[in-house]
Amino acid sequence: MKALVIHAAKDLRLEDRDLEQPGPGQISVAVNAGGICGSDLHYYNHGGFGAVRLKEPMILGHEVAGTIKALGEGVSGFAIGDRVAISPSRPCSTCSYCLKGQQNQCVNMRFYGSAMPMPHIQGAFREQLIAEQWQCHKVADDVSIQEAALAEPFAVTLHAVSRAGSLLGKRVLVTGCGPIGALAIIAARAHGAAEIVATDVMDTVLDKALEIGADRVINVAKDSGSLAAYGENKGYFDVHFEASGNEKAIHTGLETLKPRSVLVQLGLGGNVSIPQNLIVAKEIDIRGTFRFHEEFGLAVDLINRKRVNLKPLITGTFPIEQAVEAFELAGDRSKSMKVQLTF
Amino acid sequence: MKALVIHAAKDLRLEDRDLEQPGPGQISVAVNAGGICGSDLHYYNHGGFGAVRLKEPMILGHEVAGTIKALGEGVSGFAIGDRVAISPSRPCSTCSYCLKGQQNQCVNMRFYGSAMPMPHIQGAFREQLIAEQWQCHKVADDVSIQEAALAEPFAVTLHAVSRAGSLLGKRVLVTGCGPIGALAIIAARAHGAAEIVATDVMDTVLDKALEIGADRVINVAKDSGSLAAYGENKGYFDVHFEASGNEKAIHTGLETLKPRSVLVQLGLGGNVSIPQNLIVAKEIDIRGTFRFHEEFGLAVDLINRKRVNLKPLITGTFPIEQAVEAFELAGDRSKSMKVQLTF
Amino acid sequence: MKALVIHAAKDLRLEDRDLEQPGPGQISVAVNAGGICGSDLHYYNHGGFGAVRLKEPMILGHEVAGTIKALGEGVSGFAIGDRVAISPSRPCSTCSYCLKGQQNQCVNMRFYGSAMPMPHIQGAFREQLIAEQWQCHKVADDVSIQEAALAEPFAVTLHAVSRAGSLLGKRVLVTGCGPIGALAIIAARAHGAAEIVATDVMDTVLDKALEIGADRVINVAKDSGSLAAYGENKGYFDVHFEASGNEKAIHTGLETLKPRSVLVQLGLGGNVSIPQNLIVAKEIDIRGTFRFHEEFGLAVDLINRKRVNLKPLITGTFPIEQAVEAFELAGDRSKSMKVQLTF
Amino acid sequence: MKALVIHAAKDLRLEDRDLEQPGPGQISVAVNAGGICGSDLHYYNHGGFGAVRLKEPMILGHEVAGTIKALGEGVSGFAIGDRVAISPSRPCSTCSYCLKGQQNQCVNMRFYGSAMPMPHIQGAFREQLIAEQWQCHKVADDVSIQEAALAEPFAVTLHAVSRAGSLLGKRVLVTGCGPIGALAIIAARAHGAAEIVATDVMDTVLDKALEIGADRVINVAKDSGSLAAYGENKGYFDVHFEASGNEKAIHTGLETLKPRSVLVQLGLGGNVSIPQNLIVAKEIDIRGTFRFHEEFGLAVDLINRKRVNLKPLITGTFPIEQAVEAFELAGDRSKSMKVQLTF
Repeated sequence: MKALVIHAAKDLRLEDRDLEQPGPGQISVAVNAGGICGSDLHYYNHGGFGAVRLKEPMILGHEVAGTIKALGEGVSGFAIGDRVAISPSRPCSTCSYCLKGQQNQCVNMRFYGSAMPMPHIQGAFREQLIAEQWQCHKVADDVSIQEAALAEPFAVTLHAVSRAGSLLGKRVLVTGCGPIGALAIIAARAHGAAEIVATDVMDTVLDKALEIGADRVINVAKDSGSLAAYGENKGYFDVHFEASGNEKAIHTGLETLKPRSVLVQLGLGGNVSIPQNLIVAKEIDIRGTFRFHEEFGLAVDLINRKRVNLKPLITGTFPIEQAVEAFELAGDRSKSMKVQLTF
Repeated sequence: MKALVIHAAKDLRLEDRDLEQPGPGQISVAVNAGGICGSDLHYYNHGGFGAVRLKEPMILGHEVAGTIKALGEGVSGFAIGDRVAISPSRPCSTCSYCLKGQQNQCVNMRFYGSAMPMPHIQGAFREQLIAEQWQCHKVADDVSIQEAALAEPFAVTLHAVSRAGSLLGKRVLVTGCGPIGALAIIAARAHGAAEIVATDVMDTVLDKALEIGADRVINVAKDSGSLAAYGENKGYFDVHFEASGNEKAIHTGLETLKPRSVLVQLGLGGNVSIPQNLIVAKEIDIRGTFRFHEEFGLAVDLINRKRVNLKPLITGTFPIEQAVEAFELAGDRSKSMKVQLTF
Repeated sequence: MKALVIHAAKDLRLEDRDLEQPGPGQISVAVNAGGICGSDLHYYNHGGFGAVRLKEPMILGHEVAGTIKALGEGVSGFAIGDRVAISPSRPCSTCSYCLKGQQNQCVNMRFYGSAMPMPHIQGAFREQLIAEQWQCHKVADDVSIQEAALAEPFAVTLHAVSRAGSLLGKRVLVTGCGPIGALAIIAARAHGAAEIVATDVMDTVLDKALEIGADRVINVAKDSGSLAAYGENKGYFDVHFEASGNEKAIHTGLETLKPRSVLVQLGLGGNVSIPQNLIVAKEIDIRGTFRFHEEFGLAVDLINRKRVNLKPLITGTFPIEQAVEAFELAGDRSKSMKVQLTF
Repeated sequence: MKALVIHAAKDLRLEDRDLEQPGPGQISVAVNAGGICGSDLHYYNHGGFGAVRLKEPMILGHEVAGTIKALGEGVSGFAIGDRVAISPSRPCSTCSYCLKGQQNQCVNMRFYGSAMPMPHIQGAFREQLIAEQWQCHKVADDVSIQEAALAEPFAVTLHAVSRAGSLLGKRVLVTGCGPIGALAIIAARAHGAAEIVATDVMDTVLDKALEIGADRVINVAKDSGSLAAYGENKGYFDVHFEASGNEKAIHTGLETLKPRSVLVQLGLGGNVSIPQNLIVAKEIDIRGTFRFHEEFGLAVDLINRKRVNLKPLITGTFPIEQAVEAFELAGDRSKSMKVQLTF
């Protein structure tokens, strides 16, 4: 079978790998759709991010959905031909974090397509994937496999919403409207945010933000006054989903959040300079959010029940043979939101 | 009557002010003890802090206790001769924050000895103070007036503990063991912290930290390895009270806190550089904490009931005529914890 | 002007009252729509409920919306002709509960149409109502005044959802699908409930429950097995909105809720017998919910933004002259959901 | 070895059982002290409680501590001769509740001395006990084995405190001052309760309650007025630990708790009649609490660190041969608090 292997920055190869058989409790899935994520792009463009560096060839990809081809011994509740979204998260279920219900913090996590441990955890951009039964979530008949492949990044934003607490009556600021920011808007709307204001530096993504549920968008490259007005009377927003990793966006949040508000940090941007006096005087709560656990199943469920519509986020679909073209497009946020591959 | 007035950095004067009569609902208190706080020291040493600058002469002081001399019309529950601790916090009770129970965020706050608004709010280092009845909290007969004057900084740390949530079973890190860090240790112990590790760069304050309830102290100027060990297996501490305002102390917290832990920021140190990746990957919760509200009454109550012993924190007491000497000593943390004035 | 006055059980009279002028900060509103609530029905049918008994004639009604006719001195942000929904909740803003942000617990509450205090608080079923500016919330142009008059009971259920905490990923049981149960379904759906199962003993109201957002309905008078199945593996539901006040419904909740789940009690049914062992062994959390405060403005906002559609709940509208007929219909839940009056 | 076996109500026999060898990861412990618990008394006096009935002979006991006699393969961190408290709670670590961090709700729980499942789970009143390494917690040298054997019921009350949330500044009511109520007082004091009022119908246990930390005790059999006074202004207490299982005690709590307060239900008393209107109107939160999980280790830790003193609760110690005498004494709350056996 074919697999998409990154060897080094800009060295992405289509290679052959042996087909495998599903063991007990496992399922063999023909991968039909796979979304290119920010971390995939970091491996492709820079060979890693921060301290995480490619040390050996690694199959990329972790946002996938496909069709069941074979069932291992003892698998129940699935049939050949079922379409499934596959969670890339494989916690150990035995470490102290797993036994606290914090599986996303598992110390033995084997997350698809990650160069964090050595040997690297091979990813899911391949024709066939062997997954544990509990990684697989059935996709409803009237849901496209492309939308199903968005379950993973959507789960990331559902976990972010979970970290924020109830959004009932809350005014929400979203900074950075790439795929994660956009999905955060959808997740926040679906969970009752009373008002959503979104910012970015690019009109195209802001137009998309409006289309999918933001009440107002502000291009902070052109208009700084609109946001500043939200800083009056100690602030306006109750929750800030920060999806840009940009230091300025955090400052914007601290200035326009009300006292005792929550800034949920999704974006990753290295070291940032933060005004301690604002955190203290306004008693702001900055909360990191990382991946997801039970939210993957929830993401599939919400997609299946049509509680959300993620289709507007899909920019285009490329056959795996055009992976380089797909990665280049995915890296240009002026032209793309979410680019997917087919296998 | 005499009052201690700051005119500019290092320009502290003992001046005469007119005696006032208590109005309806007010109480006239002869101030017996007043603690010198970090903000008093900033006005004395630098004429202010951050954007807050002295623009006119201001009576300093907000940590005071004294004896009732006269009662205004309609005051009940108090008698002349009663000793009281006086909360310096005077929220308006009508703004949107007050009506949400967030009085410490009151937009019309009149906190003693603050140059934030103009005209400045005059402070409490004076022989006589007119206070509202609801600012006054009776001190038990067997409590010294010096200990009563510690109610205010103790309330600050009680609010910090309140921000942290329940400490049941929690391992606590306290960085910076000046008066606020030390009181945070006492407050955390009194509310069930299972284990407290305290750090500072000075052995004298660490000795005091041990005396008042820390289980272990580490001088981070001499010993970095001991703390690093707490970073294994993703971290050890559940709650971090950061009372130094030092960037390095925050980094230490982020590295030794367990995932989903809480870093309560008490210290004020300007802009700090924070590693966003740690906040995100470990899902840390950084929470600012600012002053107090109902915790003032609680502080007095806990002191009265002997649930805590704050006496070890009092370094010395100076007559108001020796205020400059007192301020110089208070500014030298190698020699002093809390220095108080008498009037 | 005309007002609808209850004198005793079944003694409802249309009487004349003097028109009043709005004082400073007040608004004169021509009431256009008023919904008949369960408490109105209790006064009409039984002269009160529990210990609350009519002791003098009282104007009924508290679910009203109308058109501004005159503005008192100093009112801003409103114009004559604006349509507004009027909150019947008038907390004192000065008692200890108000200053904790628990205005719905105000000890001096003056809630429209309540015989709890003596003299009774006169209600809003009248041609003209003088309201404080802060009670009035503007209704969007494309929202009917009938839907606006549903803001009050909708606010009750928003407060119930607020009491439940975040509904992200939660499976919700609603027992009792009268107006409050039905609005709880709408409120829960709008705030992200993953799945909603509703029960009642009447097919007509269950059909309505399905129409407005329940995923499944069960007629517990006919089918007990379906619910019992949810009790396997210690339970299925995460949150139970109990809107019937019926003892059996509470037992159903305790049996089908997962451990550590929340049962939000909305319905009022006198003394109920509760199996203590289930509460203890499953660590269930039974939370009362009472009226609302900031949720009134939120209710109007969500209606204005079309985040919810409350129109299906309106059974019919009667002129005030046919009030008795309207009350009789409102009391027959086989035929009506929400009956409103016009003035 | 000898074991204490219950065959039916009042049929308690000292029997011989074979000694066992510790398997891998297991520890053989000579049991030195074992406390008689309320459930042991129910088996002894009534052959069970509620639906839980003895169906076969069962060794009683689950509050034990002892000395290590042998270590199984792979055990580390323990040595022969170490004294340990042994948690009777053995969750499966694989069910959905365990993987949510709710091990006390484990569907495969094997709790010592429980007739709930069939075959029954044999208890710990025996000379030798084979325990998993993770059940064993080392006891400090200066702690008596009797006090160590109180870790289990103390853990029950620590879990109750955990369910209540932070006790900072909270006024606490404890109803029922038997062993669990008394330990709840100690647990609440150790975690910062500002004030504790305890009630019972027997002066002897109330004297003990005062001795161990209650601020005030009220004998509700003699004095009802004192409690009623706490009901003014909608209530006084913030948290109620209900340890009697008595319906009247719950009513007392509902009447004297402030709005939005928490009633933590520890006591088990069958069906109770609860005034729904009080739960709703005051928005009370009734929370069940059941056993413990991580609180067992915390209990041992707090005992080891001398943060609490449980010794006043030990009424007496009996050799296993006088078990019947011990059980009779334990069942007479006018004469005993906690009765323990030695083996």
